Amino acid sequence: MSLVKPSIPKGTRDFSTIEMAKRNYIFNTIKDVYALYGFQQIETPAMENLSTLMGKYGEEGDKLLFKILNSGNFMNGVAEDDLADGGTNRLAAKLCEKGLRYDLTVPFARYVTMHRDEIPFPFKRYQIQPVWRADRPQKGRYREFFQCDADVVGSDSLLNEVELIQIIDEVFHRFGIRVAIKMNNRKILSGMAEIIGAPELLVDITVAIDKLDKIGLENVNAELREKGLGEEALARLQPILLLEGSNEAKLQTLKEVLATSETGLKGIGELSYILSKVNGLRARLDVDLTLARGLNYYTGAIFEVKALDTEMGSITGGGRYDNLTGVFGMPGVSGVGISFGADRIFDVLNTLDLYPADALLSTQVLFVTFGQAELDYALPLANALRLAGIRTEVYPEAGAKMKKQMSYANQKNIPWVAVIGGDEMAAGEVSLKNMITGEQTKVKAGELASKIQ
Amino acid sequence: MSLVKPSIPKGTRDFSTIEMAKRNYIFNTIKDVYALYGFQQIETPAMENLSTLMGKYGEEGDKLLFKILNSGNFMNGVAEDDLADGGTNRLAAKLCEKGLRYDLTVPFARYVTMHRDEIPFPFKRYQIQPVWRADRPQKGRYREFFQCDADVVGSDSLLNEVELIQIIDEVFHRFGIRVAIKMNNRKILSGMAEIIGAPELLVDITVAIDKLDKIGLENVNAELREKGLGEEALARLQPILLLEGSNEAKLQTLKEVLATSETGLKGIGELSYILSKVNGLRARLDVDLTLARGLNYYTGAIFEVKALDTEMGSITGGGRYDNLTGVFGMPGVSGVGISFGADRIFDVLNTLDLYPADALLSTQVLFVTFGQAELDYALPLANALRLAGIRTEVYPEAGAKMKKQMSYANQKNIPWVAVIGGDEMAAGEVSLKNMITGEQTKVKAGELASKIQ
Repeated sequence: MSLVKPSIPKGTRDFSTIEMAKRNYIFNTIKDVYALYGFQQIETPAMENLSTLMGKYGEEGDKLLFKILNSGNFMNGVAEDDLADGGTNRLAAKLCEKGLRYDLTVPFARYVTMHRDEIPFPFKRYQIQPVWRADRPQKGRYREFFQCDADVVGSDSLLNEVELIQIIDEVFHRFGIRVAIKMNNRKILSGMAEIIGAPELLVDITVAIDKLDKIGLENVNAELREKGLGEEALARLQPILLLEGSNEAKLQTLKEVLATSETGLKGIGELSYILSKVNGLRARLDVDLTLARGLNYYTGAIFEVKALDTEMGSITGGGRYDNLTGVFGMPGVSGVGISFGADRIFDVLNTLDLYPADALLSTQVLFVTFGQAELDYALPLANALRLAGIRTEVYPEAGAKMKKQMSYANQKNIPWVAVIGGDEMAAGEVSLKNMITGEQTKVKAGELASKIQ
Repeated sequence: MSLVKPSIPKGTRDFSTIEMAKRNYIFNTIKDVYALYGFQQIETPAMENLSTLMGKYGEEGDKLLFKILNSGNFMNGVAEDDLADGGTNRLAAKLCEKGLRYDLTVPFARYVTMHRDEIPFPFKRYQIQPVWRADRPQKGRYREFFQCDADVVGSDSLLNEVELIQIIDEVFHRFGIRVAIKMNNRKILSGMAEIIGAPELLVDITVAIDKLDKIGLENVNAELREKGLGEEALARLQPILLLEGSNEAKLQTLKEVLATSETGLKGIGELSYILSKVNGLRARLDVDLTLARGLNYYTGAIFEVKALDTEMGSITGGGRYDNLTGVFGMPGVSGVGISFGADRIFDVLNTLDLYPADALLSTQVLFVTFGQAELDYALPLANALRLAGIRTEVYPEAGAKMKKQMSYANQKNIPWVAVIGGDEMAAGEVSLKNMITGEQTKVKAGELASKIQ
């Protein structure tokens, strides 16, 4: 064993105590709200068979999968001409049977298929686990990061969409983050493609609408012409480009424009139903036609959430999809889901300084002593506090310098220090110091717990 | 994308909703007790550089590491004669830079070394994460499993040992599992090796002592003779083989037998101190010289925990070690730690049927309705219950058969069902059914929350 200067793989992170406290606060808040709506947690293994993962994320995704070298003699079964290919997928497929999960959706689909006979449908599950992608690491993009998904599968009811929006609203309300929830529907986008007769331009159109504020209507129209949209289609599109006002007004305009598209009207109906049923939202809820995330995946509602008080891309997203498990031989499972962006929420809470002090508080009291006798005196007092549910430490090194012990309390942000010297012992007391105010008072040993609570 | 019949890698597991609820109960209990003693959580990445992991677990351990194929052209830098070696470590080292963590100790040592300037010492950390080993899977042995470690590093004080024993006691008290905590000290074992003049036979001796109950003194002595222990050494060993009675009596005998060994006496002193300071234990605490786990690693106290009411190997273990971080160029960091065996505790709680009903309860109320109007009527009632903190679902498919809705409640073990038909709507009521007793009563909508609480 030679000395190695330690490091961690690029794109990965250690979570130190403060970061963990913050992450736990985020996850516990989300978990509580998921549970409030009847979602239950599952977990799947970090490793999946590559046969489960490959081909599910496109060619680019396949390249970003972390593959695990087979155990034992991994060169078994590798032929000369596999090698001749160099470091290719073909050789990788011989060397590796397993990979690390790339998201939570494919493992969930695999899970639903394998456990279909024991699952209660509609199945409301949530899952909070790390995923791994061999992406180029950059600011805010990691090779290991957490996803935080909730899905309902096996139910076509729009009530699920309503509840997921309420969940989003409740979670951000608990965080104290003011947000706008943006909503669209794939069927409305399909309707637009229908009436302009140019489905292949759908993405260009949503991108152009998105630029309207910045570059103005004329430039948007010019851009769309350039992309190949004809004048007639462009004319039909104008009311949609100019869509404004309340959600109701927007839907009314859309109803007129998309009057000839059955699909489009269905999408409008779905959006209207959801808007009419969400209850007591504190978030802003905006119909937003520029929302085209996961266009190839979503088939109904599309959601996205943005923080109002700081610049940060989408912090939550989701939508309805068909046929989750078809690729695993189980047809007809549709569902709807959302995913909280834990890393971005972490940053937003930092930027807006919204972490509650309680959530970051670990040890509440530290016993600081002048020697072995004082330390021995402290032990039963510490145990009594713990019995009262107070998180308590005794500085373990008898006779350590006072400065060292107090600095330990400061480093750990411990709000109370109970100092014990000869006088305190003789009097059956401790000197209790409030580390925030600096105030110090003598307290009878038996009254310590109530004083701190 | 061809159809694949889904499966998961051998030795891995899905955790379904019930298993997750049980695992969360176990981890939350342990976390709460760790926190009560001032331990703080950290997490490290699943992937570590192989330079961090290799050589730390012996030759056998190196073979059990899951290695991750380099991204991009992984054949870069692989030479003809690397290939000629076949599937060897040498070739693997060219193909892979990273591996999955094998335990939490080496990543922790790496973490302490890298973060030494920001850590408050003594550093009390806990860590609950999965680890991966390419072991042959068998009953109760998985390739992915959780470890659940707490360590104090940077303190030689025996108070840490005392507190870790109290933590063990408190955790199993909360679980309702009766346990014996067995304790030994590496220095006592060294002392034994000294006085019999045969340190190389130390493991044989502890194994032999362990068999005493089963095969009797004569056979144990015969076995030790066979292993090469001389008559004089055997004679010196007899009082230790016959060690009986209370912990105090055992320590007294040891003190006499090991009187000439400074190291041995130091070990006895440490054990005595710990025994004198542990406070209000509910667990049995037994001095047990057969405890030799991690003999090459531990330098002081050694702990092990066994359940009293069911056969199951060690369910928790730990001890004191020197020089955690030396291999990473940071000398002088000693520590003491414990590790709860989550999988075995999971099984013990199952066997003894000790999971509290509360911990397994997810949704508390399900609204069951006869059609769309009833479902619409249910929505604000459900939201009111959620506002009161009651975990609530509305069966989302309007007009689904009653039998189907009730069967959903049964599958999810939901204790209350609120049935809504035309009569209930007209009267502003719901029919509340207790799914355990079968009892059903009409309740005013406004009184639902208080009725359920």
